[in-house]
Amino acid sequence: LQALAPRVPVVDLFSDLPAFNVRAGAYLIPAYSQYLPAGSVCLCVVDPGVGGARQAVALQADGRWYVGPDNGLLSIVLRRAASFQAWKIVWQPKFLSSSFHGRDLFAPICARIARGESSTDWGRQIDSSQLLQPDWPNDLAEVVYIDPYGNAITGLRASCVAASAGLMLAGVACGHQRVFCEAIQGQPFWYANANGLVEIALPGGSAARLLGVDIATPVRIAC
Amino acid sequence: LQALAPRVPVVDLFSDLPAFNVRAGAYLIPAYSQYLPAGSVCLCVVDPGVGGARQAVALQADGRWYVGPDNGLLSIVLRRAASFQAWKIVWQPKFLSSSFHGRDLFAPICARIARGESSTDWGRQIDSSQLLQPDWPNDLAEVVYIDPYGNAITGLRASCVAASAGLMLAGVACGHQRVFCEAIQGQPFWYANANGLVEIALPGGSAARLLGVDIATPVRIAC
Amino acid sequence: LQALAPRVPVVDLFSDLPAFNVRAGAYLIPAYSQYLPAGSVCLCVVDPGVGGARQAVALQADGRWYVGPDNGLLSIVLRRAASFQAWKIVWQPKFLSSSFHGRDLFAPICARIARGESSTDWGRQIDSSQLLQPDWPNDLAEVVYIDPYGNAITGLRASCVAASAGLMLAGVACGHQRVFCEAIQGQPFWYANANGLVEIALPGGSAARLLGVDIATPVRIAC
Repeated sequence: LQALAPRVPVVDLFSDLPAFNVRAGAYLIPAYSQYLPAGSVCLCVVDPGVGGARQAVALQADGRWYVGPDNGLLSIVLRRAASFQAWKIVWQPKFLSSSFHGRDLFAPICARIARGESSTDWGRQIDSSQLLQPDWPNDLAEVVYIDPYGNAITGLRASCVAASAGLMLAGVACGHQRVFCEAIQGQPFWYANANGLVEIALPGGSAARLLGVDIATPVRIAC
Repeated sequence: LQALAPRVPVVDLFSDLPAFNVRAGAYLIPAYSQYLPAGSVCLCVVDPGVGGARQAVALQADGRWYVGPDNGLLSIVLRRAASFQAWKIVWQPKFLSSSFHGRDLFAPICARIARGESSTDWGRQIDSSQLLQPDWPNDLAEVVYIDPYGNAITGLRASCVAASAGLMLAGVACGHQRVFCEAIQGQPFWYANANGLVEIALPGGSAARLLGVDIATPVRIAC
Repeated sequence: LQALAPRVPVVDLFSDLPAFNVRAGAYLIPAYSQYLPAGSVCLCVVDPGVGGARQAVALQADGRWYVGPDNGLLSIVLRRAASFQAWKIVWQPKFLSSSFHGRDLFAPICARIARGESSTDWGRQIDSSQLLQPDWPNDLAEVVYIDPYGNAITGLRASCVAASAGLMLAGVACGHQRVFCEAIQGQPFWYANANGLVEIALPGGSAARLLGVDIATPVRIAC
């Protein structure tokens, strides 16, 4: 993709979003993309309704672009943005598979945006409020991703949780530590991760395996 | 690799081919590469006989290049091609490990092809029929790949299976659905995947885990 | 990263190093990087002490660059180098997370080195012997990595083990084979892998699963 789009970073958020769970993914996208430079293009795909009635959209939020389905995946990055515009993608590729719009539709649109093509060439502006999910909370008290080390990332922004707070995950109390090297061997803890989210980790091991948690496991703030 | 070979796409088919199973991989290569533009170069490695008597070859088929071992891996893409030519790779790298010709031999050849070097610089033309496996079927009624979602991809081209047909996989009947969003929760189904192959999937879950299937598990068309 | 640093190869050794185990990783780095051209830059991260007292360093060894923590990870590549120089990284990024110096500190330094910036712009030269771990052996008789096929890579250089030697791993004797295709089905064996390390493999299967071994499992040379 980058080869086609040399002007700005194009970031594929496929493999770092949870399979199937649109809502969990929605809370990761603003966390992942917050440090990308203006003009960056994010390909966002958690798309269990692919081939159905959901639309293909592009969102410009605080200067960055997000391309994906309008199933709620872009709702949290939109809700937190100060400036935004949204487009329905009306361009159609010559071949559109029924199951892989990430490849056939969203990726070419990302490339066109990154090359500087005007949105009028591929889209029609829409009211961005269509992308919102009013019922979803501002922060999601659930595990939204398990990383390759077994760290359990939540949909809670660390800036919204007091460092003095304990977290309950799968019945286990997890205290706060600022950094890994201050944590106690064998004892799960939470910390503000590199993307600003509350993350439960285990020094030198897999917190997810120790606690038996998975995506969508609820977490509770125990003050 | 792309950095060395800027003219055309160079695609590494390492990680999307099944480990050890050459025949299963052979049915994936034409499916994966069919949408690549003319001149693309595919690095194809499933190579359990590495270091033995099998030869290193390059195949040009319908305008695309394929580089890999002559163990049958390229036989199906060749069989389906309308125009083709094959070369034995006679160039030798300064250092050739006994176990990783993908790195030491095939990748440099891919780069040279992509840079536009003449095949006479590294190869000697051979009769391409040497690459064929006459005993292998036109479509393989087996699971040939399990993707990261747990979808079970078969070696059957969807265009050769009637949409009205049911499939039996691990004793479970799987009906056809056009798209994921029309499938029934908890119920495995088959559909024509984005590369034109028959794929058994489970809405929101892993079909492979539910059905206990793996690469080489047979599938049966139950009309 | 490569996009930012077009002059020389920049290699990310994140995903091919074992999680948490600094010592195991130290024996992989010289093996992985030995064939990279002069000027290459390796981003080396196994960093359980991130956020603590350990320093960020850059090492130039035999013409290649290595950037990472000074926790011992770079000690073996340094010990084996004929020429070397080391720098403490004194540059600070605007935002430095407490847990991901790979992204926030090491990667930007790699990019600056690859662009040809002078080390005086970001570092202060130090005595490289600070990076050594005198107690660590020249070769490590342990599993240091399990690859995606289930091959168990050890910290032993194959050039230091006689081909006539047997290896004991998890109570199982493993004889030597030159190449995979000469090994016996179902029987684990060892061979000199493509990076010069002793590796225990199983033809067509996962040696690690068969033998029940993991990173840090000891291996014994049985002459």
